[in-house]
Order: sequence, then C-alpha cells, then structure tokens
Amino acid sequence: MDFTKIAKNAKTAFESIAEVTTEQKNSVLTLIAQKLKENSGFIFQANAVDLEAAKELVGKGEINQSTFNRLKLDENKMRDMIQGVLDIAKLPDPSGKTLFRRELDNGLILEKISCPIGVLGIIFEARPDVISQICSLAIKSGNVVILKGGKEAVNTNKAIFKVITEALSAVGYPENVIQQVFTRDDVAEMLKCDKYINLIIPRGGNKLVKFIKENTKIPVLGHADGICHIFTDESADLEKSAKVIIDAKTQYPSACNSVETLLIHKNFPHTAELLTALENAEIKIVKEPESWSFEYGKTVENIDEAIEHINTYGSGHTDCILTENMSNAEIFLNKVDSAGVYYNVSTRFADGFRYGFGAEVGISTNKTHARGPVGLDGLVIYKYKLYGSGQIVSDYVSGNKKFKHKEL
Amino acid sequence: MDFTKIAKNAKTAFESIAEVTTEQKNSVLTLIAQKLKENSGFIFQANAVDLEAAKELVGKGEINQSTFNRLKLDENKMRDMIQGVLDIAKLPDPSGKTLFRRELDNGLILEKISCPIGVLGIIFEARPDVISQICSLAIKSGNVVILKGGKEAVNTNKAIFKVITEALSAVGYPENVIQQVFTRDDVAEMLKCDKYINLIIPRGGNKLVKFIKENTKIPVLGHADGICHIFTDESADLEKSAKVIIDAKTQYPSACNSVETLLIHKNFPHTAELLTALENAEIKIVKEPESWSFEYGKTVENIDEAIEHINTYGSGHTDCILTENMSNAEIFLNKVDSAGVYYNVSTRFADGFRYGFGAEVGISTNKTHARGPVGLDGLVIYKYKLYGSGQIVSDYVSGNKKFKHKEL
Repeated sequence: MDFTKIAKNAKTAFESIAEVTTEQKNSVLTLIAQKLKENSGFIFQANAVDLEAAKELVGKGEINQSTFNRLKLDENKMRDMIQGVLDIAKLPDPSGKTLFRRELDNGLILEKISCPIGVLGIIFEARPDVISQICSLAIKSGNVVILKGGKEAVNTNKAIFKVITEALSAVGYPENVIQQVFTRDDVAEMLKCDKYINLIIPRGGNKLVKFIKENTKIPVLGHADGICHIFTDESADLEKSAKVIIDAKTQYPSACNSVETLLIHKNFPHTAELLTALENAEIKIVKEPESWSFEYGKTVENIDEAIEHINTYGSGHTDCILTENMSNAEIFLNKVDSAGVYYNVSTRFADGFRYGFGAEVGISTNKTHARGPVGLDGLVIYKYKLYGSGQIVSDYVSGNKKFKHKEL
Repeated sequence: MDFTKIAKNAKTAFESIAEVTTEQKNSVLTLIAQKLKENSGFIFQANAVDLEAAKELVGKGEINQSTFNRLKLDENKMRDMIQGVLDIAKLPDPSGKTLFRRELDNGLILEKISCPIGVLGIIFEARPDVISQICSLAIKSGNVVILKGGKEAVNTNKAIFKVITEALSAVGYPENVIQQVFTRDDVAEMLKCDKYINLIIPRGGNKLVKFIKENTKIPVLGHADGICHIFTDESADLEKSAKVIIDAKTQYPSACNSVETLLIHKNFPHTAELLTALENAEIKIVKEPESWSFEYGKTVENIDEAIEHINTYGSGHTDCILTENMSNAEIFLNKVDSAGVYYNVSTRFADGFRYGFGAEVGISTNKTHARGPVGLDGLVIYKYKLYGSGQIVSDYVSGNKKFKHKEL
C-alpha cells in the first residue's frame, strides 16, 4: 500500500480512539497478554523461520552473533514480553490528566489536560520483543503507531503483530491503530511524512539513529551517541570507585549507558590501585584516544576541567562523579548538562525500569520534550480546554472586565 | 564576529549561570526595569532614528503602516515593557523545581529536577518591545539567548540591549548571557548551529516561521499558520454566537488567534439572522474559498463533519464550538486535535497573559514539548539526579537486591 494512505489511515485511527477509556485500554492490554500466551507456539514457529535464515547470514558474516541472539525468542523472553504488557496495563493512564484547572473569570474555566501526541513512527532493529512493548505503550497512552521492524525479524514481527491486531479487533478497537510497514522505501516516506507523523522513535544503534535524525523534519525521540563519563574526584573512595566503574564498564558493555570515559583528579591518591583493580576486571585503559569522544582514561587538574570536558565531549546521556565531598557532588550535578547526573553510582542505572517507569520507549538526549529514559509520560502532550458562556476578549481589552486567574 | 564563536560563548555563559539563584534572577530583573526607566530618553532617541528611516520606507511602499506602528515606541509601550519585566520577576522560578523524588532502593535517591534548556535562538520582526520580554523570560528561566531582531528596529534594539547588558554586568552576571546578531548570514548560521543552539523561537509572520521550520534541524517553538475555526452547532444560542464570532473576527483581525473559518450546522435555525449580525459588524463571508485553509463560511451536515473538517484543514491552533448541547461540546473538545479547544468563547483568548502565564514567548502548534501559549514552563526541561553510595546494577540483575521504587 502507498505510504501516504497508511499514514492517513493512522491519523483517522487516532481521531477515532479519542474517547477510549482507561478501562478499555487496560482490558485490551490484558487480552493481548492472554493472546500472546495462547499463541506462543505460532510465534515461536515464525521465529524459527527467521532464525534459520539468520543462521545462514551469520555463516556468511553478514550479521553478527549478538544480532542473532537478540533475534532469538525463547520461553524466558516470551514470559517477559507477556509480563511487560500486563505491567503496562497496571500503570496509571498518562492521558486525560488535569494538569491545572483555572478560573480565568466568572464562568470562564481553563483546563490543561494531558493527551496523546498522535501518530508515532517506530523504527527498530532485530529485537522482536520491542514490538509488544511499543504497542502496549502506544495503546496505554492513546497514540497510534506505524512500525518498521528489522528485516531479520520479519516473520516473528508479523506473527506478533497478527496476535496484537486480532486482540484489538476482538474488543472493537478501530482498524489501523497499529500498522506495520516493511521496506526501506517505507522508511524514506515515513521520514518525509511530517503532515501525518508527529513523532519518530528509533530503537537501534548509533548509525540508524543518526541517519534518521539527519533525514527528517519530524521530531525524533532518542539518542545517537551515549558517551558516558565517570569522574573520580580527589576525595573519592577507592573501593566504591572500583566497584562502580567495573559495573558501569563490564556489566553490559554494549549498552548505551555503559561508561566510555574515565576522568581522574590528578591528586586522587589511589590512582595506581584503582587502575590495577580495573585491569584485574579485564578493563584496558586507553590513554591516547583517537578522539575525545571515545573510550579512554584521562587525568584532569580539577573538578572544573572535568565538568568542562564532559560538557564539551559528552553526549548529554549519563555522567557520574565519584567523591566523598558533597559540595563537589552538588557542583557536578548542577553544572554537568546531561540527562542523568550521578553521584557515587553506576551509569548503568539510566533505564526506565530501574527509574520506576515500568517500561520505556527509549532514552532521550534531546533537550526539549523528554530527556533521559522515556516512559509513558514522554508519549503525551496536553491541550487547553476553555469553557465559557459567550465571553469576548474586547471586554478585557477595554477594561470592562478583569481576569481573576484563580486556581481551582 | 564569527557566529560559531558567538554560539560557543553562549554555551559557556549557559554553563556559568548554572548556579544562579532565584533571588539573583529577580534582583537583576528589578534592576533591568529600573535601568529601562532611567534610560527611556536614550531609547526613545534611538527609536526616533529607526522611525525616521522607516517613514521613508513607508513612503516608498517598502514597509506598510502596521509595521511602522509596531516599530514605534511610545510612553505607553515603554511603561508596559517595564511592567512586563517586573511581572516576570514576580512569577515563580520554573527551574530547580523537584518534579519527583523517589527512593529506588536504600540510599539510592532519584530526583527529577526542572532545569533550563540552554541556548535559545530568538528571531523576531519589527517589534522592539519583544526584546525585553524575551530577555526577561530567558533570565528568569536560566537560559541564555542570541537575538536577531528586525533590521527596521536595529537602533532601538541596540539601545535596549545596551541597557539590559549593563544591568546584567552591574550585578556581576557573566558576559554573553544575552547576545545580539544583525545579519541574514547570522540567521543562516544560527539555523545550522545545532551543536550549540538548543531551541529556535521565531516571533513573526507566517513566512518567517515557515522559512525557519524548513531550514533547520534544531527544534522550533512556534506556529506558522493560525487557521482558527468556529463551529455553530444546531443548538447554538444566536445572541452568544454573534457576539463571540464578531469578537473572534474583528477585535484584532491580524492576530493568529482570530477566526478564519465559520462552520454552521445545516439545521441551525438562525443562520439568516446570524449572517445579518455579522454583516452589520462588517464581516464579509466568503462562500467559495480558494482553499479550505483560508477564510470562509461553510455549512456542514453534523458535528462529525465539523470535527473532521477542522482536523483536516485546520492548523491545530485554536478552535471553538458554539452550542447549548453539553454532550456535543465534550465530543468536540475531546476529538478536535488542537492546542486550544473552546466552548462558547472567543478564540482570541488564546494568549499567555489571558491564560494567566504572565508572559509568553509565543504560541506553539507543535505536538511535542510545548503547545498553545508558551510561558516560562516552555523554556525548561528536566534532568535526573541520582544520589548513591556505591550501588551497582549487577546486584539488581543478579537478583541480590530488589528495587523499592518508593515516592518520597
């Protein structure tokens, strides 16, 4: 189908779900979880087809083993997927909240109400478990989505998509709340479609996100680089520091919130012991980096140099100070201009689940709309409802009437 | 000066005001108001130079009379400018607010804190009173700005800028919190400078805003079109409807929140009387528009057609239903996807001052970050501060520890 037609259908679907209640959202999510469980076998069969094809590509060196691993659905991943949908059903509805209610004047009431954004374009790579999470977050927040998954997972994605859309139609949801596209041309069209698509969310590697950001006028929620720093201050505790740095570097090295750069205060008295501890954990410190924006260690004169370094070469993702000096900690937390600023704790905590958001659509390094791990709250905006009884502005401009601006 | 240097200086200035207190912000705003008063004569002289030059351009037909009027500063405008700065000093500080405080686990505290966005690029046309409003909003929210004013107001803008920067330096504010640029080349550089500029705010006509939106990857806060609709439902009250429509159309016809399109339910029994009332107010209804996105009147079958028409041809600015049927009002307010959705009240109320925001940077038709009239709240984002004592993620992944996620 022509992409513009798909996008128009999405907009129509968005308008048709404007009055869906929280109860209806939660019951369809519960049904999706149930249907995923009932149809696990069907989904595993589809996944097996994808795995078979992927195995050949691994053999040819066209995809790597970690992509293959992400592609593989097993009983554990399926159980987590299903639990994830049920968890989202239990979260509070982010839409329809009254953010304020103000009496502008007698009989003139202004309400600021949270509401969904509209049509989300989701572009993701080879992880089929993303699809149920994204669909659940979209349904709960009242948005509609157009999904483009990685081509390696096409059969798995189609199977999961089928189960979800059948659940939606079983409870009478309008068509096209969730749609799927498959080609590169569709992605190109999506990026151009600012008339109908309100937000693009890429879930994938640096290259994918960079490409998308450079090729669309639609707001993009996410991050390309995740260059995280840890600054070991003069007064840092050796044992705590070693523990935190090792976790931040080795617990899951390919994650965006794992640490790249270690800055050490020149007067930190335990540098040698710290480096030995890191070496013992198989961390190799590069001292002459190709670029300051990559992995390495560096000595700095003082906290100011550390802050300036991070604000210059960092990506605004997550940065940490290790110190026993609380006043330095506050300076660092206030002056480092990143989504996450941490004191004596591993950068790996930058994650929606760990923050208590239940689920996340991704981590944003944007400085508008949503920053850091983004949960349901990042999928809503607000509208102003003004209830009157014939009021006109000329009465207020002429001075006949005055505003009360009273909070209700 | 090279624009990149200006932009870098702005970023440095932003970092250097990270710890300015609310009291310091308010005292500099009070001083700016005082200095504007003391230097009114100096500013009026500069304005006289601009007006002299503009008079010639009006004579040649190069600028119109309304641009000339906007350019002219008089005692009243100066008084409002000064009062505006003092009003912003009285508003609550939007930065540094704790949006939540959550205990993730023992001794692991997550805070979500509002903070300024960073470097704002402000591009505005011939209204010199905008400069003090924008600077005050930026200072209060903790942002820094690079201003590009209209060339017709260059002397006035320079004079006001001089007064404001002198006040800033008198209280020891760092340099470059407010900077000014003057050329078209500077604007072109600004739009490309996504490394240092975090948000562009255009204040001006449709053409300026459209040009900017089409020529930058930096988020733009504002609106190009302001196509506002009023739908007169079957049950609308004749007298109320005439009063509201006349205000929405004639109180200030060139404003973005004045109404363009009148939709009338085919069974509204008082159409003839309504049209007569509008004619008497010198409103001419065009029935065969060149495009549905311009000014005209149209009969619709029912409320659904009205909503669909607005969501298709509107610009998401402000749209109103006139009705005595509360259930129809709710349907309209929920289903029309605009920043402002109004019931029995003039669209001209869409304004930061009227909403009780004290001041506004503009009105946004964006669907992310900020929507509708944007006050101080639209100039902040947030960061996450995580306070720990050596916690590592591997303890939570292994199951050694569990999150508490307790609100504090």
